Amino acid sequence: MNHKIYFTPGPSQIYYTVPDHLKNAVKEDVMCISHRSAAFQKIFESTRASLKALLNIPDGYEIYFTSSANEVWERIIQNLVIESSHHFINGSFAKKFHQFAESYQKDATTTKVADGADYESLEVPDKAELISVTLNETSIGFGFDVEKIKKLRETYPEKLIALDAVSAFPAVGFDLNLVDTAYFSVQKCFGLPAGLGVWILNQRCFEKYEKVKEAGLVTGSYHDLSDLKANGDKNQTPETPNILGIYLLGKVCDDMLFRTPKMIQNDTIYKATILYQALEQNAKFKPYIDSKTTRSKTVIVAECEGGNAAILKVLADKGFIIGKGYGSYKDSHIRIANFPVHSKEQVEMICDIIASF
Amino acid sequence: MNHKIYFTPGPSQIYYTVPDHLKNAVKEDVMCISHRSAAFQKIFESTRASLKALLNIPDGYEIYFTSSANEVWERIIQNLVIESSHHFINGSFAKKFHQFAESYQKDATTTKVADGADYESLEVPDKAELISVTLNETSIGFGFDVEKIKKLRETYPEKLIALDAVSAFPAVGFDLNLVDTAYFSVQKCFGLPAGLGVWILNQRCFEKYEKVKEAGLVTGSYHDLSDLKANGDKNQTPETPNILGIYLLGKVCDDMLFRTPKMIQNDTIYKATILYQALEQNAKFKPYIDSKTTRSKTVIVAECEGGNAAILKVLADKGFIIGKGYGSYKDSHIRIANFPVHSKEQVEMICDIIASF
Repeated sequence: MNHKIYFTPGPSQIYYTVPDHLKNAVKEDVMCISHRSAAFQKIFESTRASLKALLNIPDGYEIYFTSSANEVWERIIQNLVIESSHHFINGSFAKKFHQFAESYQKDATTTKVADGADYESLEVPDKAELISVTLNETSIGFGFDVEKIKKLRETYPEKLIALDAVSAFPAVGFDLNLVDTAYFSVQKCFGLPAGLGVWILNQRCFEKYEKVKEAGLVTGSYHDLSDLKANGDKNQTPETPNILGIYLLGKVCDDMLFRTPKMIQNDTIYKATILYQALEQNAKFKPYIDSKTTRSKTVIVAECEGGNAAILKVLADKGFIIGKGYGSYKDSHIRIANFPVHSKEQVEMICDIIASF
Repeated sequence: MNHKIYFTPGPSQIYYTVPDHLKNAVKEDVMCISHRSAAFQKIFESTRASLKALLNIPDGYEIYFTSSANEVWERIIQNLVIESSHHFINGSFAKKFHQFAESYQKDATTTKVADGADYESLEVPDKAELISVTLNETSIGFGFDVEKIKKLRETYPEKLIALDAVSAFPAVGFDLNLVDTAYFSVQKCFGLPAGLGVWILNQRCFEKYEKVKEAGLVTGSYHDLSDLKANGDKNQTPETPNILGIYLLGKVCDDMLFRTPKMIQNDTIYKATILYQALEQNAKFKPYIDSKTTRSKTVIVAECEGGNAAILKVLADKGFIIGKGYGSYKDSHIRIANFPVHSKEQVEMICDIIASF
């Protein structure tokens, strides 16, 4: 059998430079150094600078590290919401964030449409302090229309907007000025081992945090926003963090900067286009999202006539491991990750297999 | 200059098998596989089994993975305490846990003695639902007398006892039947890259958790105890976890099982003995903890006449990186980690340098 290449929507194939960076990490004692050492501070600072350049993060936005995007959901609810958040939901991950808000006993409202359907109304209740938008809904391959985010920003200038950028950054370009906070985990488009989340916030979030404190709410402990900031300002973290993860993230950001974000984003569009084309041209498949404007560029989802078992097997036999459907779509959908590590040549091979299936 | 060997009290020198395990992890696609795959379930199951064997974890105790010991502090407070916890404090880490309880607005009481002093009274307020004990206070090198833990257990059979085993397990043997929950992070005695915490709990904790739920309290979200259990029962985690960390932990546990816990613990005692001896025999040093019964076996702390700069430099010139003091002792103390990765030969060399300093 060929060596496997993972087109699963995260964890996915690791970026091709990761094994070399791991070797260097051993050589440079990255796993041995203290998180209070100057050596760690340098790694932290460098990774933040590389992320800022790669994602074009505006001045005034802070970057912190958590253990996962799940953790960021929790920290957003603890630190930025007093009573009410509003969630746009048409898939499982947006739904999960809403459930987190409910677990924290918030008055969390929703705009819920059928899985994969677009949102017709952008109305948000007055009471909502924060609006949650999922840029790329990994469960069903839906991409939130950026024009609608602009519209939300214009209509509700007083509310915070939180962007779930999991499976999107940096393969999908985005102007972070449109939102107040954004977050992602690194095992998707960054091609890194899981166990690290990135949380980006602007100054309005810090102002809101002060109000949450004034209201006397619990804002967490070691990853309370003030602790993250007090330590982050010194290029440190409150706890002993995933130092290796932070190091690898910085290195892969540098690799991606060398390739340029524009090139990565253009390649992403090309690969997505040929994948959707191949799926549309074979009657056995149907892209799950109808509208081309809201089809995800990074997680290509299709319904499979008679279930996904046969195509999963044919691709696996060639070494291509793609994803099953999410949740109730487990056996009926396929999900093909289209991340920066996945080369045009590999994607073309998958398209050929789909065409002749 | 020689290659460095880290005797810092965590992160510390990585276990000598880690680089090989990392290579295998790349080869076996550990960083690519889905956390919902059978391959991950196998890793999860295997790591739990190895930990159970290595730490002699009694039946009925569950094992979960978090991102750090800091996170476990937070989860204990959220999941196991309704109103009040009690904390034995004679150093910075026990103090920090108490602060976490206060951040969560608990009525958290303390038995506070001077840094490094032993506890004379073991009295705990009636209202305390959980007693926090730090087996090895890493900040000042104090080892909690196990006889006193037995006494606490006898005196307060109704209260939960939570054991901070950071920097202790598996170098220090302990009968887990004496406590209800214990936790540690892996960058100390396990010699692993930071970013993983281990949380062990017995059935009494689950019963207490039900009461916390009944009281209507917030118990967290993805790392709420019921979510950890529902997923753990399937050899899975609620979120995408630090899969590489869980894999490496299992591998290093196996290596340590091969060496046997008894051998590791005996070596630890031998190395601690010669280190304290060397420090006592040179008038320029004084072990910070007076009583031999409460001296840490794994983090050897000493006061240095005229500050620690000179000895740190002499050791560093030979490639031995030891720790500075913690917090206010930064410049006056040295802290020498005595973890399973640190060989008798290396420790003997450090003793020689201390003797001739």
